[in-house]
Amino acid sequence: MLQHIEAAIAALPYPERPEGLYEPIRFILAGGGKRLRPMLLLQAYSLYHPHYEAALPAAVAIEMYHNHTLVHDDLMDHAALRRGRPTVHTRWDENTAVLSGDTMLLLAYRELASAGIGRMDEVLRLFTDSAIAICEGQQYDVNFETQSAVTESEYIEMIRLKTSVLLGCAAKMGALLADAPASDCEVLYAFAEKIGLAFQLQDDYLDTFGDPEVFGKRIGGDILCGKKTFLTVKALSALTESEARQFKGMLACGSIDDDEKIRYVTACYERTGVAALCKACIRDYFDEARTILSRLSVDATPLWNYVSPLIARNR
Amino acid sequence: MLQHIEAAIAALPYPERPEGLYEPIRFILAGGGKRLRPMLLLQAYSLYHPHYEAALPAAVAIEMYHNHTLVHDDLMDHAALRRGRPTVHTRWDENTAVLSGDTMLLLAYRELASAGIGRMDEVLRLFTDSAIAICEGQQYDVNFETQSAVTESEYIEMIRLKTSVLLGCAAKMGALLADAPASDCEVLYAFAEKIGLAFQLQDDYLDTFGDPEVFGKRIGGDILCGKKTFLTVKALSALTESEARQFKGMLACGSIDDDEKIRYVTACYERTGVAALCKACIRDYFDEARTILSRLSVDATPLWNYVSPLIARNR
Repeated sequence: MLQHIEAAIAALPYPERPEGLYEPIRFILAGGGKRLRPMLLLQAYSLYHPHYEAALPAAVAIEMYHNHTLVHDDLMDHAALRRGRPTVHTRWDENTAVLSGDTMLLLAYRELASAGIGRMDEVLRLFTDSAIAICEGQQYDVNFETQSAVTESEYIEMIRLKTSVLLGCAAKMGALLADAPASDCEVLYAFAEKIGLAFQLQDDYLDTFGDPEVFGKRIGGDILCGKKTFLTVKALSALTESEARQFKGMLACGSIDDDEKIRYVTACYERTGVAALCKACIRDYFDEARTILSRLSVDATPLWNYVSPLIARNR
Repeated sequence: MLQHIEAAIAALPYPERPEGLYEPIRFILAGGGKRLRPMLLLQAYSLYHPHYEAALPAAVAIEMYHNHTLVHDDLMDHAALRRGRPTVHTRWDENTAVLSGDTMLLLAYRELASAGIGRMDEVLRLFTDSAIAICEGQQYDVNFETQSAVTESEYIEMIRLKTSVLLGCAAKMGALLADAPASDCEVLYAFAEKIGLAFQLQDDYLDTFGDPEVFGKRIGGDILCGKKTFLTVKALSALTESEARQFKGMLACGSIDDDEKIRYVTACYERTGVAALCKACIRDYFDEARTILSRLSVDATPLWNYVSPLIARNR
């Protein structure tokens, strides 16, 4: 299935010109990744139809859209690298990131409309509403950078919008395209939403506590850029007022040695029990997802077998 | 009709939060302008249906989309003002321009899909294809800044993509929504495309030769920022090699007095006959548009009566 997705992405037809517009799009889409969103879409579709080829354009559209958000998010975050390769605004420039990014969103719509299978009205509405929710999530994420206190529920709502909504959209879209019963469409959305929360918390956890060999990037990256994550939000709520002030000062401090900062913050996460709390929370979302999935009218084993190894690296 | 458009724009429902995302959208849409694109859409629709209310969501969608391109173009051009008000990235910041701009494109799709009248598949395909062409036009415009020689046909193709395509899209969309005959849909597209070329060349002309009182902005703006326009492209092709070198040097020169630069360049336009050529070219596109419109299967007088005064200020 993954190979089919890669082949469909590689076979996307782009106009020859203007090269400056389409070359960055080809570049970012060739960057690989787990292709989680198109995989979820096809896995959901396959629960109802063994031949998932008809859903490939929609799967490609979701991946194109996801990469659009990466190009614009990396621009907004001034991130230099993505999956070990330069980001579009770094390799080209900021204007290219804006304009090629816009084009990717439009190409996603074009690809989606070309699918031409079941319930296209609903599919387009789902896609548009999801993408608007994701913009809202990104705005909350931006707000959090300058917001002094972020509550746990605000944080969870932000990652729900920014991450989960697109997984929910992908799974539900697969079901819609397969003309699944309406209740199954909702079950798959709710399932993927919980999975998305588990994934994001797992990312937060592994960024500090992961095995660098397995994790594939430097441990402590979130700490070094002072990012608000589930761990910081929970730690701050567990600390006394003066401890919290010290913790925030440490996170924001630019003159301290990197390793020392990581050691200090990590120790604080362990002392406050936040590391264990985060693992428990991941497990809870994962279990909730499994319970939701059991309500499906068809056998969901293939979907579950695809998703569960993705969370297992943490268990 | 304009009042209906303004009322529909003012009545657009935005979520309360996140404020940082939706406030800039409300701000730019309240900035007025001629509302040329939604007017064209409704004028085209009205040729087939006297009650154009059903087409208002699509008209609002086109205006929303147009303002999305303004937000992102102004960001890319580092423009500080738009219609006498600060641009979004100036009043807020660059990230806001990226993200609120993205949201506007999605809101345009949401509004369009909500129209729920005739031939929605064709309408969505037209809209997406047009928006992709407009990105290509913007990319050519960006390329021209660093491209040493731009031919007249390259310039015309750029403004066709960047300006005309959206006018064509608006007029054709009005016809599609009204379920007009296929040939009329194409006639209206071709008509608005020519009108768009005439409008853009008129903008180029008035920026140098307009009456400041009527034009509403400083005369010579294009000259001062060294922008490539129809006038520069034609002038360069009329000058000898050494004259062209001097002309380009003058346009790019940062140390020369503003008024002196404008005087020099304007004199060059007059001496090479480029000013008269531009006026003739506007007239030709306008006449072509009129000829094309005469092929419509219905009486196009109301549409012509709306469009012709917009070009008359130059004649």
